[in-house]
Amino acid sequence: MQDKAMLMIPGPTPVPESVLLSLGKHPIGHRSGEFSQIMAAMTAGIKWLHQTQNEVLILAASGTGAMEAGIINFLSAGDRVVVGCNGKFGDRWGEVCDAYGLTTERISAPWGQPLNPDDFKAVLDGHRQKPSKAVIVTHSETSTGVINDLEAINRHVKAHGQALIIVDAVTSLGAVSVPIDEWGLDVVGSGSQKGYMIPPGLAFVSVSPKAWEAYKTATLPKFYLDLGKYRKDAAKHTTPFTPPVNLFFALKTALEMMQAEGLEAIFQRHQRLMQATRAAMKALNLPLYAADSCASPAITAVAPQGVEAENIRSLMKKRFDIALAGGQDHLKGQIFRIGHLGFVGDRDILAAVSALEAVLAELGYTNFTPGAGVAAASRVLSTA
Amino acid sequence: MQDKAMLMIPGPTPVPESVLLSLGKHPIGHRSGEFSQIMAAMTAGIKWLHQTQNEVLILAASGTGAMEAGIINFLSAGDRVVVGCNGKFGDRWGEVCDAYGLTTERISAPWGQPLNPDDFKAVLDGHRQKPSKAVIVTHSETSTGVINDLEAINRHVKAHGQALIIVDAVTSLGAVSVPIDEWGLDVVGSGSQKGYMIPPGLAFVSVSPKAWEAYKTATLPKFYLDLGKYRKDAAKHTTPFTPPVNLFFALKTALEMMQAEGLEAIFQRHQRLMQATRAAMKALNLPLYAADSCASPAITAVAPQGVEAENIRSLMKKRFDIALAGGQDHLKGQIFRIGHLGFVGDRDILAAVSALEAVLAELGYTNFTPGAGVAAASRVLSTA
Repeated sequence: MQDKAMLMIPGPTPVPESVLLSLGKHPIGHRSGEFSQIMAAMTAGIKWLHQTQNEVLILAASGTGAMEAGIINFLSAGDRVVVGCNGKFGDRWGEVCDAYGLTTERISAPWGQPLNPDDFKAVLDGHRQKPSKAVIVTHSETSTGVINDLEAINRHVKAHGQALIIVDAVTSLGAVSVPIDEWGLDVVGSGSQKGYMIPPGLAFVSVSPKAWEAYKTATLPKFYLDLGKYRKDAAKHTTPFTPPVNLFFALKTALEMMQAEGLEAIFQRHQRLMQATRAAMKALNLPLYAADSCASPAITAVAPQGVEAENIRSLMKKRFDIALAGGQDHLKGQIFRIGHLGFVGDRDILAAVSALEAVLAELGYTNFTPGAGVAAASRVLSTA
Repeated sequence: MQDKAMLMIPGPTPVPESVLLSLGKHPIGHRSGEFSQIMAAMTAGIKWLHQTQNEVLILAASGTGAMEAGIINFLSAGDRVVVGCNGKFGDRWGEVCDAYGLTTERISAPWGQPLNPDDFKAVLDGHRQKPSKAVIVTHSETSTGVINDLEAINRHVKAHGQALIIVDAVTSLGAVSVPIDEWGLDVVGSGSQKGYMIPPGLAFVSVSPKAWEAYKTATLPKFYLDLGKYRKDAAKHTTPFTPPVNLFFALKTALEMMQAEGLEAIFQRHQRLMQATRAAMKALNLPLYAADSCASPAITAVAPQGVEAENIRSLMKKRFDIALAGGQDHLKGQIFRIGHLGFVGDRDILAAVSALEAVLAELGYTNFTPGAGVAAASRVLSTA
């Protein structure tokens, strides 16, 4: 059967039909009053989603573009930065810092485990002579399904006083609460193909007044990613460079859907989907890669034993047209990842788990009672 | 009447229905075999459009992102570069060079006039001690409707021998021949919302082997715009960062349409549309901002006398839902610009010109014989 694919990867995530219909509209001129009206209307929605009064700037880029902008706009060559590294994306932000000649100090934890907030305290305390200018933390580590304790790390950063906190919220925003103003998060980057429920192509960066102060003296070179240009034009409800207008149409529709559902309901749904998925994996005796205490509400990584992760992925695709994500870098072939982020509902989890049971049986994996995964997921979904 | 807008601006340009339907399809995973098949299939089409065997890399960005990538990947701080400036976009590439600490030498011509190729010879000849590393030229200057004599400028660059030629082909590619291999153009940047007939959000950069040689020693900092990353992944038919997959669907459909029409036919169509538009403006006694000898086949800029440019634009919008572009920077209010780029046909020109006649009459402009513009355009379209 064709044209009935199901995305259970951590991005691109499923897109509602109404959003696709908005996306497929004929573009309008981006220097028109109509476009400015759309931008103005969305500004409120975007701030609502970000739980902030800070400016949230919209770029034509991937999440990496957002994070690079979030780093380079506020720093100068030689500045000391601390980067939390416990997965592919934390590692990537370290590479960005290196590429720009920052003095990069990495705080690491093994992939699959969370960063230890106390490590941040220790490192920041040690930087009395040349204080760190920024601390970069990946909230939900997409590569491993681990959520880092951003609140605790941020408390240490705030106690230290000087450093900006720069957050990769690419797979946390819209899945779990990221209370930017309440916690005082200076820079938060995200991308459209995740919790936003729209296709890839838009990137978002929220910027605090403290970060804008740092912007004034930051000297790393930039032009397309110069957030000052976006800020200036956003005040007039426009953009410095031609925006992907069709993705803005899609964003408008998606934000309306999110506002109708409500932030708390969205977060609760993601919690429920995560718990159901994890309960199912446990019932199928498939080891979870991240512990319950640091499980991301967006992605569940599974490290199967007695059956190959890649065989599961390819048979899920072939038999049921369900896309699961594989492991990245050294985890390739070691894990598979189930995305339950964005436009995902209870039915999707049951469909994925029941298909997984069929695939496991077909692959000769016998370490489970048929139906146990679905029953476990169902139990969570009916009570959580 | 709603929902019947007509774009006659130099971008976003009109998008065919079949392209919109492709755009509105549900996304697929970008790490899937299906996506790689689409990328592989498109590679041939993109090279065909660029008339090159060079690699053409695809970024999620605007045309400015493409041009910034095309500049910073091949240069180091302090390198001497020559930038042709005769409009907003030439000026912008100069600003990019300044932002990255390049030693920027500008060759200027007044807005509305073409760059003088001999000026490039003189400047390059004068750089014996510290030769220029690159010459940056805007082919079709979108802000003024002037096309620069890229072939002649490039001959001087080639005679000089050392410098890379970096071309902004944002509104020339797909409208007029840009024979990259025949002329030996090292770096050529473009954007999806122009001749490509798809909405904004994708940017393209073609890179010659000589430019890749320069890449090896270039030290300007970059990450998201690091073309080496795109090159490495393009060899495996994938991208380093999440691509806007829906715009790739659209691109595939648009390329198929372009290949069915044929390159020569596309260029001839743009010539015909340009000539018809210019003939109409002359018949209406509306002064053309650029001379015939340097007229861009993508955009015609008009500097009306006896009637306000902005009044024409707003009444065209209000009465007929036709979007024309205004002047930029100091040309605001001085000119209006008619885009005839991409998915534009004879009927569109006749519709725009006849609507313009109605608007001129309504605004009290009497310096024309009613019907003269349409008759002039019609004459060109039936013979050219």
